[in-house]
Amino acid sequence: MRNIRSANARIAVDAAMKKALEMQIAVCIAIVDAGGHLLVFLRMDRAMLGSIDISQRKARTSAYFGLNSEVLGHASQPGGPFYGVENSNGGLITFAGGAPLTGGTSEIWGAIGVSGGTSDQDAVIAKSGAEAFST
Amino acid sequence: MRNIRSANARIAVDAAMKKALEMQIAVCIAIVDAGGHLLVFLRMDRAMLGSIDISQRKARTSAYFGLNSEVLGHASQPGGPFYGVENSNGGLITFAGGAPLTGGTSEIWGAIGVSGGTSDQDAVIAKSGAEAFST
Amino acid sequence: MRNIRSANARIAVDAAMKKALEMQIAVCIAIVDAGGHLLVFLRMDRAMLGSIDISQRKARTSAYFGLNSEVLGHASQPGGPFYGVENSNGGLITFAGGAPLTGGTSEIWGAIGVSGGTSDQDAVIAKSGAEAFST
Amino acid sequence: MRNIRSANARIAVDAAMKKALEMQIAVCIAIVDAGGHLLVFLRMDRAMLGSIDISQRKARTSAYFGLNSEVLGHASQPGGPFYGVENSNGGLITFAGGAPLTGGTSEIWGAIGVSGGTSDQDAVIAKSGAEAFST
Repeated sequence: MRNIRSANARIAVDAAMKKALEMQIAVCIAIVDAGGHLLVFLRMDRAMLGSIDISQRKARTSAYFGLNSEVLGHASQPGGPFYGVENSNGGLITFAGGAPLTGGTSEIWGAIGVSGGTSDQDAVIAKSGAEAFST
Repeated sequence: MRNIRSANARIAVDAAMKKALEMQIAVCIAIVDAGGHLLVFLRMDRAMLGSIDISQRKARTSAYFGLNSEVLGHASQPGGPFYGVENSNGGLITFAGGAPLTGGTSEIWGAIGVSGGTSDQDAVIAKSGAEAFST
Repeated sequence: MRNIRSANARIAVDAAMKKALEMQIAVCIAIVDAGGHLLVFLRMDRAMLGSIDISQRKARTSAYFGLNSEVLGHASQPGGPFYGVENSNGGLITFAGGAPLTGGTSEIWGAIGVSGGTSDQDAVIAKSGAEAFST
Repeated sequence: MRNIRSANARIAVDAAMKKALEMQIAVCIAIVDAGGHLLVFLRMDRAMLGSIDISQRKARTSAYFGLNSEVLGHASQPGGPFYGVENSNGGLITFAGGAPLTGGTSEIWGAIGVSGGTSDQDAVIAKSGAEAFST
């Protein structure tokens, strides 16, 4: 398990925020380490209060499973192989907006979670943050 | 209520681990007693963090209902007779990977829960553990 | 309730981090708004994992009561007038390191919570953050 | 943050169990990684059910703060600098029986938690486990 430096986590947050500003969406952005523990968090002006928790859960979901959060969501629909998985681990969020941070390596260093727009918008913003992350 | 000896629980864990290694899947394996209380737990190298909690919930689900976890999952789909049952008991996991331990008797001595692969893979690994269990 | 702008919250975090670096202590720094909701969070490299939660609880304690966290701690010792108050509100932290943010006004705009050093050190760092905060 | 191999975690558990058998005390033994996540758990025959949770919380407390659990307990007595800290992080256990695992390095790789005897006995057993741990 690798340690993300807080300065590098902030770079990822700033890249995500820049994207959100371009898209004119106010979001919460959370970065967690590979163990799912919070590293950096930012709530943009006018972001919904409900997004504070959701962004962190999306990040934790991605870190715990090494997947984009929506991958788990697709597999946990009624009739799906992981139906109800969101009830584990203290409550997961399994729609889009959570993404692993690899920094171009083959390892998962942590994850980013974004909440505030539609889940598709959140995923675009999370991707911008993840792409800006380097180890 | 019968008491599983910890040495026998470990034999079941080792059998499950051996199967998982053969299948080249990294899993978490949990054994609970007939009361659903944790007896032995093992997280294999590289298993997802999210599987720690899921494996234990699968085992508890099996112990609490005396069934393979997926039996409950089939009955709790939307429209099904136990729809929403996963919200009881502090949160159940109702897809495959949890199995009762009987040791060839007619009684339930405890349960094994496995998480880390697909739910079908987890069920195969749990079955190996359950078959290796003797009282 | 006044809204802290996230840019101003970050200035306070940066001032606190600068002080912590001078003191050679790795801390977690949390800023909450007047409603106690997380706005900005930073975990410095090598800060203890236990401080993630404590820093946020200190900030929330200060925001909820409009006081430095240790004021509540003095009043909640055995035999004191608020004995056990830390069990309210989902769990408070009542030792030093939480401080209200007023920005020189007569109103409480939010609070800062710091954890990672001794509680005295945490209070010094929190004070640096609070003094750098402007509305 | 370093990864403990599960085989090495088991060696530590076995050393702790051996010590507990010598002392004729039935305990629960938990090993967590540096992020506080469960790696290996063993409940010995006749150990109290209440020790399942306590052993895991002791281990998590040691991992989160990088200290023997009782160090935090001494500092969190009434009038002490961290009074009430046990209410953080989902509930800590701050009496003896939790110890960091360093494997003779200067880094914390995880922690061991033991519960079942007196806290002094638990600490002796945890120490045996910690001493047997190598990276």
